[in-house]
Amino acid sequence: MKCAVCRGPAVIDLRRHNANFCADHFLKFCRDQVVRAIDEHDMIEPGERVLVAVSGGKDSLALWDLLLDLGYDAEGMTIGLGIGDYSTASTATAVAFAERRNLTLGRIDLRGDYDYDIPTAAAVTRRVPCSSCGLSKRHLIDRAALDGDYDVVATGHNLDDEAAVLFGNVLHWHTEYLGRQRPVLAERIGPETDTGSGGRSGRAEAGTRVFPRKVKPLVRLTERETAAYCVLRGIDYVVEECPMAEGNRHLRYKEALNAVEAASPGAKQAFYFGFLARAADRFAPEPDGGDGEVRACARCGSPTTGEVCAFCRLIDQVTGHDPVPVELVRPRRRGSRRRRARTKRPSGQDATGAQNSTGSATKAGS
Amino acid sequence: MKCAVCRGPAVIDLRRHNANFCADHFLKFCRDQVVRAIDEHDMIEPGERVLVAVSGGKDSLALWDLLLDLGYDAEGMTIGLGIGDYSTASTATAVAFAERRNLTLGRIDLRGDYDYDIPTAAAVTRRVPCSSCGLSKRHLIDRAALDGDYDVVATGHNLDDEAAVLFGNVLHWHTEYLGRQRPVLAERIGPETDTGSGGRSGRAEAGTRVFPRKVKPLVRLTERETAAYCVLRGIDYVVEECPMAEGNRHLRYKEALNAVEAASPGAKQAFYFGFLARAADRFAPEPDGGDGEVRACARCGSPTTGEVCAFCRLIDQVTGHDPVPVELVRPRRRGSRRRRARTKRPSGQDATGAQNSTGSATKAGS
Repeated sequence: MKCAVCRGPAVIDLRRHNANFCADHFLKFCRDQVVRAIDEHDMIEPGERVLVAVSGGKDSLALWDLLLDLGYDAEGMTIGLGIGDYSTASTATAVAFAERRNLTLGRIDLRGDYDYDIPTAAAVTRRVPCSSCGLSKRHLIDRAALDGDYDVVATGHNLDDEAAVLFGNVLHWHTEYLGRQRPVLAERIGPETDTGSGGRSGRAEAGTRVFPRKVKPLVRLTERETAAYCVLRGIDYVVEECPMAEGNRHLRYKEALNAVEAASPGAKQAFYFGFLARAADRFAPEPDGGDGEVRACARCGSPTTGEVCAFCRLIDQVTGHDPVPVELVRPRRRGSRRRRARTKRPSGQDATGAQNSTGSATKAGS
Repeated sequence: MKCAVCRGPAVIDLRRHNANFCADHFLKFCRDQVVRAIDEHDMIEPGERVLVAVSGGKDSLALWDLLLDLGYDAEGMTIGLGIGDYSTASTATAVAFAERRNLTLGRIDLRGDYDYDIPTAAAVTRRVPCSSCGLSKRHLIDRAALDGDYDVVATGHNLDDEAAVLFGNVLHWHTEYLGRQRPVLAERIGPETDTGSGGRSGRAEAGTRVFPRKVKPLVRLTERETAAYCVLRGIDYVVEECPMAEGNRHLRYKEALNAVEAASPGAKQAFYFGFLARAADRFAPEPDGGDGEVRACARCGSPTTGEVCAFCRLIDQVTGHDPVPVELVRPRRRGSRRRRARTKRPSGQDATGAQNSTGSATKAGS
């Protein structure tokens, strides 16, 4: 197996590109793909300040490394989600990466800073953990970018992620999500609130940025490629998948697409980029009014279509509960809805009760 | 397991409907689904003459049986494709079904009537067999419907078929196919050809029907359900799948969707009907001109955007060749493109040559 560029010994074969690469040319390939993604989708301008959402996994660390390598002014932000050993290891890995290179890494700890964690939020809301997790991460990263005056937020979504999300949106024909599934989400300026007319305007003012631009520079790389990138670059990352995501739809969609990709290399890439080229515009929201009335959250000023944004509503619901250990929150599976953890502050026996009601709670282990 | 309707012993469980049925109520369920499909999509008006495309498999025989049972004036049409024992058995099964009930079944034999068969066409065109097969069947059924003055052609496409085709079209974002993927294709009246202006108009005249309405009354039933319907109705059908379809994309897409369906019963139905409800219109061709200039085929008068329609071009290419046995035409697989059968009239050694060049030709089975 020889490198397609230099004919030296190859270390990786990329079937969808029908090419093998040596370590150096594979790393160059990764950089080239990121440069191309950034250029084609106008993700980041030279000189802009980038906030990288860092989990400690292969994608976010590869992304941070790549952006620095390409000369961007990229700082990190990590959120302690409280998902047992998995979160402990993730945060430690992100911190170690930053310290070794003397990088700036902002940190939030959900339990310490907001008095909840993801297992508890999942148990209290009785929704899949990924729901409160995604909501929390999005809100806090966006807020950190605005407060820290970053020009853009970069996340580590790779081609497999985006194709799987697209597949899920297409399976359900979630047209509103399809309309927004792009490698770049534009920044938003605060609604033109008329503070003189007696309306409540929240903290956002007209002309203020209420939502940062968000970009996904890894959309041209697969997760196998970001993992290989980390290995070849000597980046230590958390290999384990989140124990709470086990069996979730997103992973099932990945598996279904992987089966198609195995038989037709390049299928996933054609699916995602074909969507962007030929279909995404067909689902684009109406220029006016398609989003409903966006106003500022009465509590935090974030853009929302309700009175209070989803994050502030989550906070209202989930803070102040006794922590539920991750082991007791079973990933949602078919038929298990009624067997999930139940916690109510008054009982004081939440965790034990949850264990009983879940019966065969999954092992969270990392 | 009890019938959801009468609480008697159930013979089948339908997970996506979260219901079990006894034989009688399952048969009623099937009829109800067909009635609903016909009604919701305005497929067939009472009193119209229906031509059923009959292969001898479970879907087409169930369809014919259901339409007759519902009181429609439905006659059949079957095409001998020349795919070895599979085609022999299929035709015999279709004929036996018709004879036992004294039904009218039109017959075409590709080799006898048009001097080619599907294995030979696949070998000569060097394309997947399903390509010339689908083209031949569509053209000949449509033509038979027009010549026989049938109001509508009914085909046995079931929910699994339609969902798999949709998945394939979505994976590649074939927007033009997505725009046409409906349970009903409207009839077409001949182009307004101006025969006085020196143009060649073919055999079609303005105001003549050049394409019959085509409907898929089984779109609300899965293939498991049409098979169960046949078993419970005592309908003898060809169980084997076409040996030439083995490993084709359509089957792979079915498998991928089956994996999703197994984890989320109802996913396939939501995918297909969600498409019709919320996405199909977004891909609809422009009312004018989107289809290119449709004219009458110079040879046969069928609607085409070229001079000669695809079927007449196929005929030109594939008739008069020595028959290639089905065993020698290997289903197209990754990497096998260059190893497929080669036939040229002059050699006279086509079949042998093909066997050599294919190397490990698949066993055609049954």
